Parts: sequence; structure tokens; C-alpha cells
Amino acid sequence: MKYSVGIDIGKTKINFILLRNWRFVKGQKVFTPRSRKQIIRTIEDNVKNIINNIPKRDILGIGLGIPSPLNKKGDLVLNPPNLRSLKNCPLAKIIEKDLKIKTRMENDVNCFTLAEAVLGAGKKEEIVLGITLGSGIGGGIVINNEIYRGAFGSAGEVGHMTIKADGYKCSCGNQGCFEEYASEKFFKRKSKLLPEEIERKAKKGDRKSKKIYEEFGQNLGIGLTNLINILDPNVIVIGGSIAKAGSLIINPAKKEVKKRVLSPQSRKSVKIKVAKLGEFSGAVGAALLLK
Amino acid sequence: MKYSVGIDIGKTKINFILLRNWRFVKGQKVFTPRSRKQIIRTIEDNVKNIINNIPKRDILGIGLGIPSPLNKKGDLVLNPPNLRSLKNCPLAKIIEKDLKIKTRMENDVNCFTLAEAVLGAGKKEEIVLGITLGSGIGGGIVINNEIYRGAFGSAGEVGHMTIKADGYKCSCGNQGCFEEYASEKFFKRKSKLLPEEIERKAKKGDRKSKKIYEEFGQNLGIGLTNLINILDPNVIVIGGSIAKAGSLIINPAKKEVKKRVLSPQSRKSVKIKVAKLGEFSGAVGAALLLK
Repeated sequence: MKYSVGIDIGKTKINFILLRNWRFVKGQKVFTPRSRKQIIRTIEDNVKNIINNIPKRDILGIGLGIPSPLNKKGDLVLNPPNLRSLKNCPLAKIIEKDLKIKTRMENDVNCFTLAEAVLGAGKKEEIVLGITLGSGIGGGIVINNEIYRGAFGSAGEVGHMTIKADGYKCSCGNQGCFEEYASEKFFKRKSKLLPEEIERKAKKGDRKSKKIYEEFGQNLGIGLTNLINILDPNVIVIGGSIAKAGSLIINPAKKEVKKRVLSPQSRKSVKIKVAKLGEFSGAVGAALLLK
Repeated sequence: MKYSVGIDIGKTKINFILLRNWRFVKGQKVFTPRSRKQIIRTIEDNVKNIINNIPKRDILGIGLGIPSPLNKKGDLVLNPPNLRSLKNCPLAKIIEKDLKIKTRMENDVNCFTLAEAVLGAGKKEEIVLGITLGSGIGGGIVINNEIYRGAFGSAGEVGHMTIKADGYKCSCGNQGCFEEYASEKFFKRKSKLLPEEIERKAKKGDRKSKKIYEEFGQNLGIGLTNLINILDPNVIVIGGSIAKAGSLIINPAKKEVKKRVLSPQSRKSVKIKVAKLGEFSGAVGAALLLK
């Protein structure tokens, strides 16, 4: 029996999962504390709890999914926009030293994409592009079940791709970033309601709500087309809180992609799917770092 | 001694080169004929001429650079916009059969990028993005000296990345494609003069001409930033006829990249260079397909 622990550190909660021979055994979640010290303590307590009676020789290690760019070597958290206390923290090294268990870390969207590539909607595909739609847009690239990190460890930052050079100003300082048009930011501009409420109304047939989702899907399609033209993936797996809307966003996005992608072969063949592994996908991907 | 022949088939001319042990021996060029039959004849005659007295056992093969997407297997020319007579032509197979010399083919911008990655401005770099600026914008991705083709053989189609969703209409049917803003198309909209003439005037200090090039370079920088955010390459090598303007376009592009790229590490570290191998680079890359 080989066990691995996966941990997905989010802005508001931390997800823990335990895999046995790369299959799900159990998961648990806790709120994310504020300070670095408390975060480390929370992680270590929960790891001890989740591996409880398992002999240490059967544990392959711990994987951490971090909502931040890491350095190229992957041993330093650089600058997490929503978890400032972890800035420049060698988190994996600290946990490894404290618990005496091998620990790896990786950007959380890369973990999400790895999980979906190995076990989820991108299973058995060669080139998997993972996209998360939430407060912003994240991206990850997995080729032959390995994360593509790029030259300096930051490949897949698709949210800040300019799609409308004279469009809305983004928090990054540029104008017209993809995430201005296909993340929660879009809904905030369009309505006072939460995306889930607009979704509910749209599914009940409310015309205005349906139109909001359709426009969102079209915007998503413009960004995905760029990514297909550049990366030519086998499959794009869409996750994050907004992906729950499913066909409401996927259908107009697919329509746009069919219209826009340059290569007839890619246009016809690329798959666009909703993520399969649910809320623990990031943690599953983190556990897969030990594979 | 190992020889290989590289052929770059362009809209108006065909370049031939001979490499001995991966070093340049000689090059020649001829006009591109119209019909498929004449193109094949021209290629075969010139190959015979260039390999003249070399014993066949010393010839590794022939590489062809094609201005068209190919199918994933790389044995069929799909749809060359500027060389219609080669549509759906299994060109490599025909030449191989006629000359009894192993023949490979590849998209011409991929050949350009391979040449620059192996022998040119991208030498010894892990991830090389090649960009050609001419009548349109082409792109190629080379990772560890191997061409990245994508899932369906069409990765690197960067010219049709949307950067201004409500911008000028492109021949591909979409609005606001990168190549509307950073290829010859841009100059045509800005001036009645040829890019070379505007360049000459700009270098002499003409304010209007300088401004045209500066705006071009800024647009280029917007597209390059997207590609850096997504692919995170070590180096971007800029070729094609417009790249001859050198610092006139590279400097404003670099400035824009420094302002826009999300990751501080990539922003600081990515190199942007003008191609080194000159007009035979595509043919050199084609010959390198035999390596």
C-alpha cells in the first residue's frame, strides 16, 4: 500500500485528501487561518490526523497546492495575492522538516490541471489545458501527465492575456485582460446578483440572465480560441466556481471556438469539458505530485 | 561526412541549402513556379544540382519547409494560403519516391524556429518561441530543440490571437487579430509607403515615421506579453522581413513587455532577440529535420 497526502491551500479554506495507490480514500476541509505560523500549524495537525495509523514507510509524501506563482525550482512561494502571509515562504521545506515526510509544492491551478489530466476529464489525453474560472482566471498546462512550467516557472498565466487592448482596466495594470471578461469580474459589472443567482434565473428562463451567461460564454470562447491557436491542446478542462454553470457557459464558448479557431483540424477535434473531480481536485493534483 | 539538404518553399522564391555535419556549405535560390508539377520539378532539379557529386550514402535526407499547416503526422500539406497548387499534396512522399532520398516536411515557421533554436539567436535555450513578421505573423515553438506541434499539428498560430476584440476585421473572419496590428497590414493602414521606406525615414529622424514604428513595436509588445504569460519561454526570436528594422521595433516591444508581463521573474528574464541566420534560416531549419 502506498499513501500520499494532497493539500490545496485556498484563500478561505484548506482541503486535505488522502490517496491510497492513487485512489481517493478520504477528504477533509478547514478554514484558512491568517498568519503563516497558524497556517503551518493547521497543515501539520491535519496531516497527522489524516495519516493517523499509517506506518511512515507506506507514505510517499505530501503535496501542496499553492495559490501563487512559485520560483522555477518550485521550493519558494513567491507572491500569493490572496495569502500575503506566505510571501517568500519555503513552505514545503518547513513541513518536510517538521513532519519528516517528503513534501512537494506546486501552483494550485497546475495541481487542478494535473488531477484532471491524470484522473479526470482529461484522462488519456496528451495535451491538457486546465482553466479555472473564479474571482480571476487561472491556467495550467499538462503534457503527457507532466506539468509544463515554462522557463521561469510561470507558464499558463492565461487570465492576463489581453483580448481587448482598449477594454476595461485590470488590477494588473493592463487593459482588456481575459479575466475582465470571463470571471466573476464580468458578473459584477453586469449585475448586482451573485453568479449563482443569475445562473438560477437563467435556468428558469429569465431572458436577461440568459443573455449575461451567453455573453460570458462568448468572451470565454474568444480567450479559449487564442489558447487553441497557440497551444493546440487535445482537451480544455474548465473548472472553478463558475464552471458549475455547465452548458450555460460551455455551449456559447464552444460555438465561438468553432467559428474562430484557425486550423480546421483543431477546430473540429479539440474537446472542451467541465472538470470532473469536484472541489477536491486541487488537493488530488497536489497528491499526484508524489507520483 | 553527413550531408543534408534544406528547402524553404516561399510564395515567391524557393531557397535551397546544403549542410555538411550540420554546418552551412552553400545556398541557392530560384523563383517559385505556379503549378504543382513545376514546383516538384524545380525542387528535384535543384536538389540534384546541389548534391551533385556527393555519394548517396552520405546524404541523410531532404527537409522541406512549407508555408502551410500540415496534418498531425506531417505527411500532408493542408491548405497553403499563398501556394494553392500544393493543397492536400503529399509533397515529401513524392520527392522521396522520385529521388530515393529520405524526405521530411514541416511548417516553414517551425523550421525557422528550429534553426534559430539550434544554431541561431536561441542557441542553448530550453524554450524558444519564434515569431515571423511579414505579410502576416507566424509562430513556432521549440522545446529542447524539438518542435512542439500540439495535438493536431497546428500549435503556434499566434497571428490570429485576438488582442483587440472590437478591432479591425482580419482575413480569417475574426476581429482584432494580432497580425492586424504587428505585420505589414499595420503599415498599409498607416502609410502609403513601404515598410522599408518608412524605416529609412524613421532612421533619418522623421517624426511621423518614428511614431509609426513605435506604435508597431507597442502592438508587438502586447502580443508578445500574451505569449510570455502563456508559454513562459526563455527567448523570443523575431524574424521575417519586418524584423530587419531591429531596435526600431524591438525597443518599444521590450518596453511594453517590461510593463505588462505578470510574473516578475519572466518579465526580468525573458530575452527578445532579432533572428540571426538571415534569409536561409527556414531552409537551415528544414535541413535540421533530419537530425
